[in-house]
Amino acid sequence: MSQTENKKGFKGTGRMNVDTAKDWIHTFFFGGADVIIDYYADDFVFEDLTYFQTIDNKEDLHRAFVQFSNPQAAEGTSGTHDFDIIRYDGGLAGDHRAVMQPKPDRWTQEEWDQWTAEASLGGHRNDYDEWANITWIWRATHTDDEFCGLTGMKGKTTYVRGQTFHLYKNRQIVREYTQWNFREVAVQVGAYPMPEKFWLAK
Amino acid sequence: MSQTENKKGFKGTGRMNVDTAKDWIHTFFFGGADVIIDYYADDFVFEDLTYFQTIDNKEDLHRAFVQFSNPQAAEGTSGTHDFDIIRYDGGLAGDHRAVMQPKPDRWTQEEWDQWTAEASLGGHRNDYDEWANITWIWRATHTDDEFCGLTGMKGKTTYVRGQTFHLYKNRQIVREYTQWNFREVAVQVGAYPMPEKFWLAK
Repeated sequence: MSQTENKKGFKGTGRMNVDTAKDWIHTFFFGGADVIIDYYADDFVFEDLTYFQTIDNKEDLHRAFVQFSNPQAAEGTSGTHDFDIIRYDGGLAGDHRAVMQPKPDRWTQEEWDQWTAEASLGGHRNDYDEWANITWIWRATHTDDEFCGLTGMKGKTTYVRGQTFHLYKNRQIVREYTQWNFREVAVQVGAYPMPEKFWLAK
Repeated sequence: MSQTENKKGFKGTGRMNVDTAKDWIHTFFFGGADVIIDYYADDFVFEDLTYFQTIDNKEDLHRAFVQFSNPQAAEGTSGTHDFDIIRYDGGLAGDHRAVMQPKPDRWTQEEWDQWTAEASLGGHRNDYDEWANITWIWRATHTDDEFCGLTGMKGKTTYVRGQTFHLYKNRQIVREYTQWNFREVAVQVGAYPMPEKFWLAK
């Protein structure tokens, strides 16, 4: 194996940009769990809020990603997943990095600790050198009948927008905040009504 | 009224930071729709993906925000809403601003246009001068029975994490991407099961 093929994590060298973001988002499915976990630093926090996933070790991360590995990767898969980037914003780290907030008066300590603990994980990694905000679209053709509590999904194709905020150090992800719009999928399969757009002019 | 009290939009002057973010997030409820809409530039795009809201005019924006105005603001309100910031990241605009992506091969043009049109809105505003990523928590005590298709909500208190990516120009918001975890609220009120955390070590 040549020296570059031996190299794990993000392909290429130099600054992060829309191409490294495409490398990351496509490796989920086409590369699979074994490959994608090396895009993350050893001291990392990954969050997919919609999946209730807040992960800071590589074993759990591998188990979380296996569901997106493609059939050729011989791991289990929950369908065909196309993740594609719509918009990319990013640059060198700003002067406000991981500014964590104390409990406001209107909260009890217990409440605040419970509901902010996961979000605060990884706050110590304020040493990141680049950031990115990635707006993406996910087209899933489901092979399982159940998806996040929704049933009758097998064979259906759903489309959902997602958003990922990445913080990098030396071309590795040290903190990820990902979220995608479960409500959109629930509306598409008829589990919930499309909301009335009351804000539009009558 | 003194000169400063006459000034609309973000309080104070100078760079954006966690204090301007707190000003923004608290004004939703405590200031109300009449005040918060001036935090947005005239040429803006606001998005709350979970509410299916993609808005680029101030009339629609006012109607969208009224539901969060507090009772004293005499407009309708859907309960008591505490929005508080957990973490703030931000800085001067990076060198990658509004990098929009063309349709990938695996999509039809029709598909791509349908599912990326709203996300692409505001892409022309790559003239922003600062950015922020705001991780927040929302505690809502509901006074309406229905909330986003969930029923039996009256009197219940729910907690949900949200994420906002802001782009500013001259201390006004030119683009907002907001999302919050509807699935978390659905699980809290028993409409959906808490997922099995299959990624955790057994």
